[in-house]
Amino acid sequence: MVIRKIKPADYDGLWAILKPVLRAGATYTLPRNMSRENAILYWDAAAHQTFVAIKDNQIIGTYYLRDNQAGPGDHVCNCGYVVADFAAGKGVAKALNAHSVQTAENCGYRAMQFNAVVSTNTRAVTLWQRCGFDIVGTLPGAFLHPDDGYVDAYIMYRDLTG
Amino acid sequence: MVIRKIKPADYDGLWAILKPVLRAGATYTLPRNMSRENAILYWDAAAHQTFVAIKDNQIIGTYYLRDNQAGPGDHVCNCGYVVADFAAGKGVAKALNAHSVQTAENCGYRAMQFNAVVSTNTRAVTLWQRCGFDIVGTLPGAFLHPDDGYVDAYIMYRDLTG
Repeated sequence: MVIRKIKPADYDGLWAILKPVLRAGATYTLPRNMSRENAILYWDAAAHQTFVAIKDNQIIGTYYLRDNQAGPGDHVCNCGYVVADFAAGKGVAKALNAHSVQTAENCGYRAMQFNAVVSTNTRAVTLWQRCGFDIVGTLPGAFLHPDDGYVDAYIMYRDLTG
Repeated sequence: MVIRKIKPADYDGLWAILKPVLRAGATYTLPRNMSRENAILYWDAAAHQTFVAIKDNQIIGTYYLRDNQAGPGDHVCNCGYVVADFAAGKGVAKALNAHSVQTAENCGYRAMQFNAVVSTNTRAVTLWQRCGFDIVGTLPGAFLHPDDGYVDAYIMYRDLTG
């Protein structure tokens, strides 16, 4: 597996893994019916650094990194990750996170923050905890899950200065 | 005091109260050197509902209200408030918050979230607590204060369904 910066030629492969996650509506605070164009504009926005994980010439994962806030908050970054269904459970998300932490440290960020980790997504919560992230806040009922209704979302945070 | 929707004719008055807050850099995660144009584009963005408080034909305060997240998170709103220095301590912020809560309820939002209340801004923290907001998370060192260095920021949250 190679992780490298995204190129426009990757957009078909990017959309192939973003689309099912968006349509499922169970893990991301993005519109469930988001169009291909808007999804790509968002994921590879000018203010994002966006990477893809490639294996056997196929995109199996992606992440973006950006400032979480502007001005006096711009030393904290935010990332979003998606792994292809067919590549789940093979450490891709963990590798993407490790790569993003390295990218963030290279850019001088002091911390990484996730703003809305869905509490019912226990696989993600556990993974991020193993990656050194703490739950620093709980947002009551902040996520409308398609099966479970209004569920809590967590704010997760990792210091990068240690 | 009247609180009403902003109009382009209000932009000079809006900038007059936004500018000192931005330049001080002590309370908002917006670029300290933000231009008039960008500040107005941000504060009165298409996705924001923006209001001004007027007294004696002068703008003494303002707030915006927007979705805090998209898709499965769009039932939680976010607001930002600014009160003119010369109108501080007269209940303007409290009145703006009460108005924003009413606006949010009318729009069907289920909760209101503040993403980065600077912990050293004790006046704001105490005010929001009096207005029914809880500190639901603490972001360690997430705000670079011009005098105090890296200080914590709070996530504050109020349920609107009760």
